[in-house]
Amino acid sequence: MKATIFQGSGKIEVREVPDPVIQNPDEAIVKITYSCICGSDLWYYRGLSPLEVGGRIGHEFMGIVEAVGENVKNIKPGDLVVAPFVASDGTCPECLVGQTRLCRNFKFWGTQGYDGGQGQKVRVPMADGTLFVIPKDKAKDEHMMRALLPLSDVLGTGHHAAVSAGVKQGSTVAVVGDGAVGLCAVAASKRLGALRIFLVSTHEDRAEIGKKFGATDIIAARGEEAIRQIKVATGDLGVDCALECVGTPESWDACFGAVRKGGNIGAVGVPHGVADIPVSRIFTANIGVKGSGAPVAHYIPELMPDVLSGKLDVSDIFTKTIPLSDIAQGYKDMDERKEIKVLIKL
Amino acid sequence: MKATIFQGSGKIEVREVPDPVIQNPDEAIVKITYSCICGSDLWYYRGLSPLEVGGRIGHEFMGIVEAVGENVKNIKPGDLVVAPFVASDGTCPECLVGQTRLCRNFKFWGTQGYDGGQGQKVRVPMADGTLFVIPKDKAKDEHMMRALLPLSDVLGTGHHAAVSAGVKQGSTVAVVGDGAVGLCAVAASKRLGALRIFLVSTHEDRAEIGKKFGATDIIAARGEEAIRQIKVATGDLGVDCALECVGTPESWDACFGAVRKGGNIGAVGVPHGVADIPVSRIFTANIGVKGSGAPVAHYIPELMPDVLSGKLDVSDIFTKTIPLSDIAQGYKDMDERKEIKVLIKL
Repeated sequence: MKATIFQGSGKIEVREVPDPVIQNPDEAIVKITYSCICGSDLWYYRGLSPLEVGGRIGHEFMGIVEAVGENVKNIKPGDLVVAPFVASDGTCPECLVGQTRLCRNFKFWGTQGYDGGQGQKVRVPMADGTLFVIPKDKAKDEHMMRALLPLSDVLGTGHHAAVSAGVKQGSTVAVVGDGAVGLCAVAASKRLGALRIFLVSTHEDRAEIGKKFGATDIIAARGEEAIRQIKVATGDLGVDCALECVGTPESWDACFGAVRKGGNIGAVGVPHGVADIPVSRIFTANIGVKGSGAPVAHYIPELMPDVLSGKLDVSDIFTKTIPLSDIAQGYKDMDERKEIKVLIKL
Repeated sequence: MKATIFQGSGKIEVREVPDPVIQNPDEAIVKITYSCICGSDLWYYRGLSPLEVGGRIGHEFMGIVEAVGENVKNIKPGDLVVAPFVASDGTCPECLVGQTRLCRNFKFWGTQGYDGGQGQKVRVPMADGTLFVIPKDKAKDEHMMRALLPLSDVLGTGHHAAVSAGVKQGSTVAVVGDGAVGLCAVAASKRLGALRIFLVSTHEDRAEIGKKFGATDIIAARGEEAIRQIKVATGDLGVDCALECVGTPESWDACFGAVRKGGNIGAVGVPHGVADIPVSRIFTANIGVKGSGAPVAHYIPELMPDVLSGKLDVSDIFTKTIPLSDIAQGYKDMDERKEIKVLIKL
């Protein structure tokens, strides 16, 4: 089989690797049908986060189950499945309270000997906790496949930003970040009933998708000017909920600037260079701060029905579709921000 | 009339001062019937926070309205009223979203020429936003007066800790701090439906009151040992909600140690010497942090009915009752932690 190999900063290759086999009775083998490239893969690609050179990469995929270990109960060969960006057992105390991203036994694709998600097949640990079955009659609906694949990461992550900031019926929301996660945060906020959704974006093409997903106001500005425009538009109050979907000091500052007194910041951008938060910044204005890598496995059962019904469709985040053999170009295009998100059709 | 004057660190005096008169048409004059000493008054008394020497002090009181300005609509002479620890207009954008503590026109008792609450009378700014009427038939029920007075600060503050941490039906809660606010946080958590409430307290008398208010488990330990005991009691998970009711680095550490992954910290202890919060402390474990001085005026309409019905009774926090003339001794007793909270009966 073929799989994507990380060969160091800026170097992505497709190579022949051995087919995976079940090594533990809780595992499954999945033949991947769709995969994609994540903004967080670019941290490795850009040399900003470490990853083993010569190892697998990719953590968003869906596919058909080929085989299951003898302890697997909920998944069977032939099932169409989607997996979250970390594998989780579904049974530990953290999983039971919905914190599947922080599962005591979590495994990250492409590390510790586990396969990456950008390849033809993948060995799935803890299959009962990790895989979610999609009704098989949808398998030939390619549009639906493109709408379902974001459940593996970015849709759950955008939803997590909104949940962490307490978005609810009638909320005013500002989304900072117009990448795939930010756009999914717009869609998730709309789904949760937000009345007004500001999307901070200086890219017209991304702003257009944001509007389609539910953004009511595009703030085509940065920094202090973006904050000023949001304040003016909210009667000098600020928004109930600010969604941090980037992870830089500037995006955190924008969130603290845009949120109203007593409001909440939901943060899902992996922090890079973000300074500590002064307690006074929280305490003097009653600002709530929460966020993390998203417990996607916990959210899939809630979100999937709305995707299947067509109510929640973020497939537009995939601006390019390529075969696995072209994945190096896919990384390059995303790195250069030519594409929002690249879909790999296997 | 007589009023309490702050004469510098450790020096509290009762002096003769002019009776207040209405200076603006939105004001009222209240003859105080009950007042009390706050843990936060001790920050001035101990010289740890600045306060004008020779000025008024005290911010928790109830009493009878003597006069109102011509623009006051909701309050009339003869009304029995309670006031929050800051005056607020009730009409600005922040007040309208419930953030009365952060009212655009807020006034703090004893500053900017406004009277303190530890005296015989007080001039109340923005009376319509600041004063809350108590049914007059309760006036002769001294026990009820002791149960209602905490609405001015500590009961609303304990409630704010619980609300900020998202305490709800079935929550597990750890309260860090066994002062009046911590004990009120226990009562508020119980009222909101918490299933299990840990109170960290090494003082038997305070722990007893905590148990009466709803604490299910007393953790008679500090620091790492307190965290260990809470972890053991929760199956190595931690609590859903940790309520920070002290404001020191040690109490913050206890909260971060006790809360489970994905849980929330509600903070109401005014931070003193608390270091900035590393973003990683929030992000790696999906911990929510929120808190501030409490929007007590926002909470009084919700809490008062439960106090009046007897369902919510924190009057036991008042461990001593004194006349105004003995207030210096009251401060001394609280400073030495001989008393939890001292009531002043005028």
